Amino acid sequence: MKKFELAFIFLITMGPLSTAAVTEDTLLSQARDIFSPIPATPPSMLGVTHAAEKLELGKMLYFEPRLSASHLISCNTCHNVGLAGADLQETSVGHSWKKGPRNAPTVLNAVFNSSQFWDGRAKNLTEQAKGPIQAAVEMNNKPEKVIETVQSMPDYVNRFAAAYPESANPVTFDNIAETIALFESQLITPDAPFDRFLKGDGKALTDAERSGLALFMDSNCVSCHNGMNLGGKAFFRFGVQVKPAAELLADDTGRFKVTGKEGDKFVFRVPTLRNIGLTAPYFHSGKTWNLADATRIMAKSQLDLDLTPPEVQHLESFLLTLTGKQPEVIHPLLPASTPKTPRPEL
Amino acid sequence: MKKFELAFIFLITMGPLSTAAVTEDTLLSQARDIFSPIPATPPSMLGVTHAAEKLELGKMLYFEPRLSASHLISCNTCHNVGLAGADLQETSVGHSWKKGPRNAPTVLNAVFNSSQFWDGRAKNLTEQAKGPIQAAVEMNNKPEKVIETVQSMPDYVNRFAAAYPESANPVTFDNIAETIALFESQLITPDAPFDRFLKGDGKALTDAERSGLALFMDSNCVSCHNGMNLGGKAFFRFGVQVKPAAELLADDTGRFKVTGKEGDKFVFRVPTLRNIGLTAPYFHSGKTWNLADATRIMAKSQLDLDLTPPEVQHLESFLLTLTGKQPEVIHPLLPASTPKTPRPEL
Repeated sequence: MKKFELAFIFLITMGPLSTAAVTEDTLLSQARDIFSPIPATPPSMLGVTHAAEKLELGKMLYFEPRLSASHLISCNTCHNVGLAGADLQETSVGHSWKKGPRNAPTVLNAVFNSSQFWDGRAKNLTEQAKGPIQAAVEMNNKPEKVIETVQSMPDYVNRFAAAYPESANPVTFDNIAETIALFESQLITPDAPFDRFLKGDGKALTDAERSGLALFMDSNCVSCHNGMNLGGKAFFRFGVQVKPAAELLADDTGRFKVTGKEGDKFVFRVPTLRNIGLTAPYFHSGKTWNLADATRIMAKSQLDLDLTPPEVQHLESFLLTLTGKQPEVIHPLLPASTPKTPRPEL
Repeated sequence: MKKFELAFIFLITMGPLSTAAVTEDTLLSQARDIFSPIPATPPSMLGVTHAAEKLELGKMLYFEPRLSASHLISCNTCHNVGLAGADLQETSVGHSWKKGPRNAPTVLNAVFNSSQFWDGRAKNLTEQAKGPIQAAVEMNNKPEKVIETVQSMPDYVNRFAAAYPESANPVTFDNIAETIALFESQLITPDAPFDRFLKGDGKALTDAERSGLALFMDSNCVSCHNGMNLGGKAFFRFGVQVKPAAELLADDTGRFKVTGKEGDKFVFRVPTLRNIGLTAPYFHSGKTWNLADATRIMAKSQLDLDLTPPEVQHLESFLLTLTGKQPEVIHPLLPASTPKTPRPEL
């Protein structure tokens, strides 16, 4: 029996569907065309040799403050697994208490982004991991010193040998970044109410949340915020329609700094909206602390829409359904420094 | 049958004991008179009401950077559970990248100390916890703002209500400190090789380690470093016999600052030697990075002993047997800030 015949029989048997049911069904199928749920389990490690060894090593290095010149700052400092993979700052604070230029994007679900950093200058997490370690306003270190540091601790040397047995010299900056990236790839947040909705759980969203979702799709927020991460892929100018005010930092020209193309001025990679309820403050500038404000600003700057208060409320309700199950991380135990370990430089 | 009769029969039956066996037995009984093992399980919560709620809350607050004015520094920053409960600095670095006056003592097994801080100015962990939160060179916060911060997040408010159901106003600075202290009280490191030796495992220590232990006792290191924590109780001048040089900071008069007594100048609380192999650099000044150097300096300054290289080696071997099983901590998930949460102040 073909599908449409089955549907026809169903209609005859059950009588006309209620408007609500039709609407709900339409909302779901519309949403499924645009979004997809975060998978229940992290990306497979099937193609990765010695995956368990690399993952544990990556976790250790993610929490390792000795990757920074000061021995005070680790990946987890700005991408805190207890704070939805971000920090609590407008823009991150690093070496010497220097304020960096941009707000820390969450590490959670970052593996599903097409590129990394606000300007998309890293094509993947491995490339990304090398950036902050060397940035003067972040960890302020040098690859040679990072290698010397890791190499100075027998526990790390042994773990690298076990993770890369085919390599005669496994403690490399590339391998350090790769193991960190592998650990990060496992930091996903499945099972948000919105994911359960996408998977067919009709009770996953409240009426207000459904209204917010409908508005989110109908107002074209989804031109940028679509896919599994509701963002993380395309690049758009902040101010497609109306140039925002304080939220845009005058000296941060975004992707223009990467490509040098005039058209890329104030263009940024669309951020994910996953766990947005946990990651204030917002925007690359971190100038907006409130999700309702951020929603209003986006609607105006990108779509030239003046949202009514109930619209803002519904959109915010929907955005809060994007908070998923946060990853559980057992804090790693890091090896003791040795006389060969470079001393912290403040 | 009385004990000595049994021993007598044993001697007759087995013939004279070998010298080695006698020595070993003597070493163990001598050690048992001076030391005791870290218990297998943390201090009981039997007398504590709603212990589970308080412990989880304490863990969250221990990792909570919003207890600091900057929202960048938590208890775990300087007492990192992945770094044997300490940091990697000579003296800790806090708010505004300011260098504090003293080296961070480990939080591990701190519950077994008679007092807290290098000068013993806090009588317990609860009192201790209040210090760094307010210190200008550490978290630089004020109790009122800490309370306002915690109170701004419904998840914390609910957790305090569940942990202190008898209280109408449970979010207090005292309760914040108490829950942190309760969490810290569970951070113990049992099952070090030395603990297994004390419990009667004859194979727990190597010959070199046993020689080190014998020397440690016979040279009178144990005048200060005794008990369960091999320290953490008594107060002694750094330089009982010979004033040390660079290791003593001229302007840090230690316990004199607390008591104002002339005799307390340069007096410090004896630090624990538990996990000493993991917590370089050493002394309140953090000026000594190497355990062998620290051992030599201590022997000279406190006992006027000039150790030979083999003696240093044996002592170091023994000290490394004090590394116990580190606590496993699942990183807590912290609630999102709300519009009522005070913003970070850098």
